[in-house]
Amino acid sequence: MQGNGRQVLVTRYRLTLEYDGTDFAGFQLQGKGERTVQGALESVLARLTGEQIGPRVHGAGRTDAGVHALGQVAHFDSAWPVPVGRMARVLNGALPDDLRVRDARIAEPEGFHARFDATGRTYRYVILNREAPSALLGRFALHVRDPLDAEAMGAAAGRLVGAHDFAAFGRPDAPGKSTVRRVTRLDVRRRRDCILITVEGNAFLRQMVRSFVGTLLAVGRGQITPGGVSDILRSRDRAACPPVATARGLCLVRVRYDGTRFESESEDD
Amino acid sequence: MQGNGRQVLVTRYRLTLEYDGTDFAGFQLQGKGERTVQGALESVLARLTGEQIGPRVHGAGRTDAGVHALGQVAHFDSAWPVPVGRMARVLNGALPDDLRVRDARIAEPEGFHARFDATGRTYRYVILNREAPSALLGRFALHVRDPLDAEAMGAAAGRLVGAHDFAAFGRPDAPGKSTVRRVTRLDVRRRRDCILITVEGNAFLRQMVRSFVGTLLAVGRGQITPGGVSDILRSRDRAACPPVATARGLCLVRVRYDGTRFESESEDD
Repeated sequence: MQGNGRQVLVTRYRLTLEYDGTDFAGFQLQGKGERTVQGALESVLARLTGEQIGPRVHGAGRTDAGVHALGQVAHFDSAWPVPVGRMARVLNGALPDDLRVRDARIAEPEGFHARFDATGRTYRYVILNREAPSALLGRFALHVRDPLDAEAMGAAAGRLVGAHDFAAFGRPDAPGKSTVRRVTRLDVRRRRDCILITVEGNAFLRQMVRSFVGTLLAVGRGQITPGGVSDILRSRDRAACPPVATARGLCLVRVRYDGTRFESESEDD
Repeated sequence: MQGNGRQVLVTRYRLTLEYDGTDFAGFQLQGKGERTVQGALESVLARLTGEQIGPRVHGAGRTDAGVHALGQVAHFDSAWPVPVGRMARVLNGALPDDLRVRDARIAEPEGFHARFDATGRTYRYVILNREAPSALLGRFALHVRDPLDAEAMGAAAGRLVGAHDFAAFGRPDAPGKSTVRRVTRLDVRRRRDCILITVEGNAFLRQMVRSFVGTLLAVGRGQITPGGVSDILRSRDRAACPPVATARGLCLVRVRYDGTRFESESEDD
């Protein structure tokens, strides 16, 4: 691929990233001093490539502080001569333990964009629903002592599937932008001590997934009925939504690309 | 229960503990400055009970540095007046995040001893068997890049089940003590990117579980045949055993008590 106006040949690479979000202030670069996934990756790339202006990293989902990822996708352009087959290992040798490259490849097709070409995102939220907190799951799950009604939560979840105006559950990137999104899956299942909530959609508003979980928690506690969830959806009123669930239970599991570019407004949970 | 010769009524309590072993120098009290599970628990108990000589904690298994637990069992004697139904929550409010009480109850029958009454222990070892290391599983799994032959590992594991002299796989508490143990289960299964090794036995020699895993790793890499594992077992020679596997993949999952006191020699993996 020809660099845009540069004198060197640059290649666009696609990375699949896994991270423990606990000690990151989210994916996206912030003010000085904030430790972010993008910042950690860009600083390692700048050092390893030796490029005067280090590569800029673009992620598919701008996960919030504390949110984890098993399959975040990102791209960057570089003339770095390291063979792509060795790139993941070289990066992992330099990255901190809580950030890992699962896969590195040449991005395809030409012009691939990790964020704008993503056609689906899958998030998982873990609720540890038992009396005792957990030493092992502590950073990856929300601990809820009160027994939750997972069946009611599942029934309520069904009300949120489909293409809707989700203004009650999150904000767009910028005021006035569309708040319509398509949720293709939202299910709730119990596994041992945990309740797992899996959400898939084309894209999500800021805080949308955690607002879903906060709402389903209120259903699980019997504070809202499944019908009440439909009322919140119809209200399009952010203030009608129960508080967002804490970030630590949330994980970006997978990003899908199926060839149709989706002009995502934002993707921020 | 009457305290042994003391002027106050003490009760024996039984705790089920979960811990992330990463930042502990094992379960058992060590020299000054070493952070141990027993030490953390005893210091919290001494502070909360206000007893002049704080309660001594006895654990079922003296897990090594870096080894985790989901179901360690411990007991202590105390005249602490906190209701037993609230004890776990009170302790969790004072313990560090990487150590949690899952359950607290009055120990039964009278004279219950967490270590000497244990009749079975279950350990699980997690091997992450894929090219890329993991940011989320890093502290809970051994990362092995080379594809392992899980079927051969399972076949070899079968050779270690039964009552045997396991001198090749570990050391007793003190020189000259018996090295015979009964392994009731040792199985290997693949789940996605991971290979899970589950071991059950009446008790284990020091480093025995990690020696099993080290041996099975050599089988998975094709360096030893299942028949070779029988040879190592028969040798009773510690030097014949491949290196022990790292502690971080190991977790004490469960301790069983079925009423028959077993005079365990040691329990140290």
